[in-house]
This record gives sequence, structure tokens and C-alpha cells, in this order.
Amino acid sequence: MNASTPADHLVPQATPRAVPQALLDALQARFGVQFSTALAVREQHGRDESAFTVAPPDAVVFAESTEDVTDVVKLAAQFKVPVIPFGVGSSLEGHLLAVQGGISLDVSRMNRVLQIHAEDLTVTVQPGVTRKQLNEAVKSTGLFFPIDPGADASLGGMCATRASGTNAVRYGTMRENVLALEVVTASGEIIRTGTRAKKSSAGYDLTRLMVGSEGTLGVITEITLKLYPLPEAVMAASCSFSSLADAVNTTIQIIQLGVPIARCELLDGNTVGMVNRHSKLSLPETPLLLMEFHGSPASVKEQVQTVQSIASEHDGKSFEWALTPEDRTRLWTARHNAYFAGVQSRPGCRAISTDTCVPISQLANALLDCVEEANVAGIPYFLVGHVGDGNFHMGYLIDPESPQERVVAEELNTKLVQRALALGGTCSGEHGVGLHKMDFLLSEAGTGAVDMMRAIKQALDPHNLLNPGKIFRQ
Amino acid sequence: MNASTPADHLVPQATPRAVPQALLDALQARFGVQFSTALAVREQHGRDESAFTVAPPDAVVFAESTEDVTDVVKLAAQFKVPVIPFGVGSSLEGHLLAVQGGISLDVSRMNRVLQIHAEDLTVTVQPGVTRKQLNEAVKSTGLFFPIDPGADASLGGMCATRASGTNAVRYGTMRENVLALEVVTASGEIIRTGTRAKKSSAGYDLTRLMVGSEGTLGVITEITLKLYPLPEAVMAASCSFSSLADAVNTTIQIIQLGVPIARCELLDGNTVGMVNRHSKLSLPETPLLLMEFHGSPASVKEQVQTVQSIASEHDGKSFEWALTPEDRTRLWTARHNAYFAGVQSRPGCRAISTDTCVPISQLANALLDCVEEANVAGIPYFLVGHVGDGNFHMGYLIDPESPQERVVAEELNTKLVQRALALGGTCSGEHGVGLHKMDFLLSEAGTGAVDMMRAIKQALDPHNLLNPGKIFRQ
Repeated sequence: MNASTPADHLVPQATPRAVPQALLDALQARFGVQFSTALAVREQHGRDESAFTVAPPDAVVFAESTEDVTDVVKLAAQFKVPVIPFGVGSSLEGHLLAVQGGISLDVSRMNRVLQIHAEDLTVTVQPGVTRKQLNEAVKSTGLFFPIDPGADASLGGMCATRASGTNAVRYGTMRENVLALEVVTASGEIIRTGTRAKKSSAGYDLTRLMVGSEGTLGVITEITLKLYPLPEAVMAASCSFSSLADAVNTTIQIIQLGVPIARCELLDGNTVGMVNRHSKLSLPETPLLLMEFHGSPASVKEQVQTVQSIASEHDGKSFEWALTPEDRTRLWTARHNAYFAGVQSRPGCRAISTDTCVPISQLANALLDCVEEANVAGIPYFLVGHVGDGNFHMGYLIDPESPQERVVAEELNTKLVQRALALGGTCSGEHGVGLHKMDFLLSEAGTGAVDMMRAIKQALDPHNLLNPGKIFRQ
Repeated sequence: MNASTPADHLVPQATPRAVPQALLDALQARFGVQFSTALAVREQHGRDESAFTVAPPDAVVFAESTEDVTDVVKLAAQFKVPVIPFGVGSSLEGHLLAVQGGISLDVSRMNRVLQIHAEDLTVTVQPGVTRKQLNEAVKSTGLFFPIDPGADASLGGMCATRASGTNAVRYGTMRENVLALEVVTASGEIIRTGTRAKKSSAGYDLTRLMVGSEGTLGVITEITLKLYPLPEAVMAASCSFSSLADAVNTTIQIIQLGVPIARCELLDGNTVGMVNRHSKLSLPETPLLLMEFHGSPASVKEQVQTVQSIASEHDGKSFEWALTPEDRTRLWTARHNAYFAGVQSRPGCRAISTDTCVPISQLANALLDCVEEANVAGIPYFLVGHVGDGNFHMGYLIDPESPQERVVAEELNTKLVQRALALGGTCSGEHGVGLHKMDFLLSEAGTGAVDMMRAIKQALDPHNLLNPGKIFRQ
């Protein structure tokens, strides 16, 4: 493989730093059975759902408290060894790979829901709580947490990557839904970045700085989130279209008219087929919008009428309703499993996922040519999109043993990102930068802005210990 | 006045740095009539709407372009002289005072609306555009910009203080509504912090870092904002209550039930009297909620029914409707002028404004005792609140010549802030920290978090040139 090909990204440029035995001994002494250097454990912590080859850490600590976290960070800092926070491992851009070696700090056992303030629509959790666990915990209050990236991700990880997913079109992303964090800094100090107040102008927005910082500026140890009243009425439907353009243009018009749709998801016909086979469904294998409407009964009725009328102007077939909660769950589970349905459609493959997001009017321009290019290139792919936000994912399903396929997939990805940037969009709607998009970030933000990020990193983590080698080159 | 009294805050600790004649000559040569050292101009730029005594800059430059801004910043940097960005001067916490001397960089002439993308619900403006000017400019598109701090503030200033105001309960604050910024850094470099995409996970959230940074991290030269479709139906009403507690408890219940109310504003009876006299109205001089409802006709009807039923449970009188757009404008103009109505109620006074924001369930606990304390202290005050957000302002109307009144007012303010912090709230909902709340910020965020802010400031502005001496002591 030529040194200058984009596919180089998929072999992490690992330059591990020495991890002194004295540190491993100190961690072993402090953490006992919470500490492991077993290869299987290390390998499980040196990968994520991306197509990158594994880069295991030197050791793993299973933290059970904020104090555990501060002790790991302080010991690692003493020996100038990297620390990589780890939730459930569902990130997609190589965030968790220990490219410079170091200690994987697994927070999945920090999984307590600490305070439910139903009267304020807030909740405080530890970072290892997953989104499904949270929704179970608050169910009896009549409230819910809407952010839903598909995977049952940890809320710490969702903060770290600024996750969003299917409900973001109505409820926003982690950016809008985190009120405050407790964070352990690079020197092992514990800080709080905000309060439970709904808004604040009290100094720099450290909460938003930490959200999306991918573990590079601090280790998140507590999270205060907004909750929402469960909608009085929920209706979900699918609608098939003759062409992708029709489905996309329907979406554009729904958003431009300000319909407060709760979910608006696109699958192309090819992906519907994968989902059908994986989830034993029989959806028509043509472009499909999956939609959900939340609100009062009257408001939901209004939304549905507006959207039906828009869809019919774009040759949409009649709505297929998911009438019961069970039907709805089946529909959304199938959607959430699209990634796995895609990967299973080609045994042994890995997915290289794209993640551009564009202003809504540019969605057709951003999406349709990418599909055409993928078809011409002949690489199998899936296509799903949180299209109400202008965000979609092509998942190129490559044979990991074929350098040629990696090259082709990354060339497609590069073209797709360049197009999105030219249309006023971003290279990453929700997955983050990780290892995979460092060059894309530079194209998007420019040297000056990336240098500003680097200066912040340098100021908060002068020895480059927290998840080093991610977001930008240091 | 004793050195340790809180009222010391109101005499800025001015320690001007030397401004070399060579810099003034260079600015004069570069900017000609855009440059002024006239005392009247400098004094006008060394104050805001706060009770602080004026601290004029050494000179004022009226920038007309981003290039003008970079040239001012670069020249000032060369001579290590402070630069203080200035919009329309409506901030409330001493943000604009040149406490270390320097150059006031007035961007009010950078007042062009650059790009209206109605099809994407976004707009890009220069920082001197005011919110009313923006809404005039986009009126024909059927869209509007909701953030409304009362004053016809510049959008650059609103970004800098993370402003919100009456519509924030439904539409969020500047934090949620700024998509991207162009910023001139401390070294005079131009960066862009984001794109027009609705969401992004591409690196650190520099947009949110700049929003609320009060001119201390960069000079904002372009702003891309979200717009919203004008609601199909709008209804506004006032409702009088027998007691403040009833009005506050009505608000709490409205929010807890998830009613998407667009405005929910409180005035106490005393303030209604001031507003009546200032705006020639005849509202009943008892605690009053001013409310506005946006949505489809059916949704507005539902909201109104719910709120009426809640209000009547709390002894609310019947709704007085503002039926025409003109009536609504009159009502909200009166509300917006409450600050001036308050100040005019005591000729020659200055207002010391509080700005706490608490979780909604704590609003009564936060507010009622403060009113009681102010009544006992005998200082005249006004009370207005964006109570739907848990945010309210006491405006203590002090005689600027009376050190004793300043002391009493600041003691009341301190108690009020301590109470809000104890209840899980913030010292500043929307006005920012400026000079006035540096100690409150420290109490709220703690040394560690403020040190992190300081480290960021040091990294991005190593010579402390951008609006120095604000937010925290350097």
C-alpha cells in the first residue's frame, strides 16, 4: 500500500511510550482484581466498532468510583503514561485504540444512577450508565432521556463523542442535553463544570468544551442530563418512495416547514434488504423513511397530516403504521441494527462509516452523488441517515484483508467529505474525529482553529496523557 | 467604605497599563476618522448599564470590517495593550470598562446581514447587527430570530455574554442558537469555529467556548445563527395573582408539565406599578405573569387551556388577552422597559441587578426569601423574571452617592447568590460575570474550574490583551 493513500488511516500509527513496571506494580497494588494485563482484556480495550486494527493498552483498570479514577490518573501522570477512558466500546472512529500505549480506564462499573430530580427534569448519573439503563431507571417518573445513537452506549462515551442519533432532530444532541459534568483533570483534580440550572452565563462553557473532547481533556466521572416528559401521544410510520431523491426531498420539506418531527430516518433500498434479512421483516426494498411523531394527540395528528401531504407530493406510498408500542420497538430495533445488518451481509467484513452533516437544503446534493459513486466503485455498502438533521452514514463494507478495498472506500469517503464541506457542512455529525478524521477536521476547521484546539489541549494536559493521538496530531 | 465590603466591586480596580503614543499614532494613521481619543467618546465606551463608575479606554476604533479588527488586534498586540470589544453598550456587569486601559474596539458599524439562508433556517451576520435589525431583515422570509434580552443588543454582544431573555424558555439561549463564528484571535489570526450544519462532532466545541467568553478569548467578527419559522398562531396574555408564591408555583407547574410556553415572565406588584407609570398602562398592581404561546392554532389552544387550569388552581385571575399584534408589542415593550421603568422610578439612581437561575422546583425557595429580605432592608428594587427558566432579576435601585446603599444592596445580592448556589443554581443565568460576579463565579465553580478557565485564557491570550480583568482575576 502506498504511503500516501487514505487507507493508511486504518492502520493506526502506533508509537507506544514505555510503561514502567513500577507503574504496573503500583496499579496492581492499588487496584488488585480491578487491574488486568491479560491479553484478551487488553485487546478488548484496544478496539472499537471501527475498521481499525487493534492497538491494545498495556493494562486495564476497572474503576468503580471517582476516587479510583483520580488515583489512576495521578499514578499515570507520575510516570507520564497515557490514560484512555473506556465505556462500552461502541465508538466508531478508533477513539479507544491505545496508539501510544498506556492504561485503559474502564468506567463501565461506574454505573449508578445517582440522583433523579423528576421535579426539575434532570438526572445525574455515573459515566458507565448506558442510555437504556437510564431510561429503565427513570421510567416510573413519566420522563425519558431521548438521545439515542443506536448502540446501547455509555453516557460517558456519548458525552465524549457528542453523540446524537435518531431523536436529535427534535431533542438536540448531547451538546444540548448535558447540564453539567464532574471531570477528573489531567493532574487528577476533580472539577465540576456546571450546575443543575437550565441556563447559565457563569464563565467559560467548560461543559460544552468537555462534551465532544473524546477523552482528551479530562475523564468524565458524573453527568447531569436533561430529561423530557414522555410524550402524551407517539405515532411511528414508515413510508416507501420510488427514488432516493423523493425520500430526501420529502425530508427537506418537512424540516423547512418546521414540523417538530421526533425521528426522520432514511434507509436506501439495498439497506432495507439487509435489515429485512437481519431482523426478519418484509419492508419493501425501496428507499424508506422511518418517522416518529411526539406530542399531544392533536399536535401529532397535525404533524402526520402535514408530512403525509408532503410525502404524497414526492410520490411517497401510503404510511405503514407501527400501531402498538411493540410494533414501534420492532421498527426502531430493526433501524438500530442496520449497522450490524450491514456488517452481517458480508461475512468477515469491517465497516468504514462516513458521518457528514450538511445544511438541510443541501442534503440531496450531498447524498445522491455519493450513492452513485459507491455504486460505480462496486464496494458493498449500507446507507442510513438521520436525515432530518442533514446527517447520513454510508457504511462501506470492506474485506479487511484487501488493501485495495480500503483504498477505494477511503477515496469514496474523502470525496464525500469534500463535497459536504463545499456545501457548508461538517465531516462529522455525531461520531467524532478519533483517529479516522484528523485530516478531514483540518480541511474543515483550518489550521488556525485546529491550532487553537491544540493550544487548549496543551494547556489542560501539558504532558499529553489523556487519550493522546486523537482528534489532531500532537 | 471598608476594604472588605462587597460594594468594593462597584469601584473597578483600575490598573491601566501604559499605552505608548506610538500605538495611538499608528492607529490614527491606519484608521483616520474611525479613530478617536475624544473624552466624550472614550467615556461613552468605558461604561455599560451597570452601576460601576466609568473606566474609559485610551482610545476608540470604529471597525468597519474583519480586516479593521485584525489590524487593531495586531497593532495592540505589538504594543501589549488591551483591546475591549464593544457592541451597543447594553451589558450589565461592567464588561466594557477599560479597567486596564487600552483600546475599545467598537464593532457597531459592522452591521451587515451577510447571508440569509431561509432554506436552511440560518443567517450569517456581522457582530454589530442588533436583534431588532436582524428580525427586520428576515421578516419577509417568514422566519425569525427568537433570542430577546430586552435591550436591542448587538448580536456580537449577545454571543459574548451568552444572552437569553424572554423567549429562551422555548427556544434556548445563545448557547443553543449560534451555529458558527468567525473570530479574530489574540494574535490577530482569523478562525472559523464551525459550519452551517445543524450538529457536529468535529473536534472541540470552539463555538460554545467563544459564546459567553465576554470578549476575553477572541473578537467575534461574524455570527451564523439558527432561525425559526414564525409561529402560525401566537397568543399573549397576562394573569394576575394574589401572591408571588401563587405566581411562582403556577410557573413551576407549567414547566414541570412540559408545556412548550414561549414566554413566561414574572413581575411583582411593585414593578407592575413602575411599568404602569413608565409605559402608561393600567395593569393591576399585584404579582403578574406575562405569557406568550406559539404553535399551530390547535397546539396554542391546548397550551392555553392547560395553563389556565394551572393558574386557576393557584388563585390566578382570568387571563387578559393581548389580542392584536399591536397589543402584544405594547405588552412586551412594557416588559422590556421594566429595567428603565425601575431606574426612572428613583431619579438619579443606578441599578444593581442580580441574575441567579435555579432548577425550576427551587424557584419559590430562591425567590420569595430574597423579596422578603429586600423589603426588610428598605432598598427600593424592581423584580422581573424569566421564571420559566428559573431565572429572575432583582434590580436594587441605589443612590450612587451612598456607599451605605451599595453595601446593603451587595449584601442582599450576596445572600441571594449563596441561596441560589445552595439550591443547585448558578450566579448568572444570562448577564455574564464581567467585573461584578468574579467572586460569585469562584463560589459557584470552585478554584479548580476557574483555574481551568484561566489556563484556557492563558493559552489563547498569553499576554492577557483581550478584555483583561473580566470573569476571573489574572
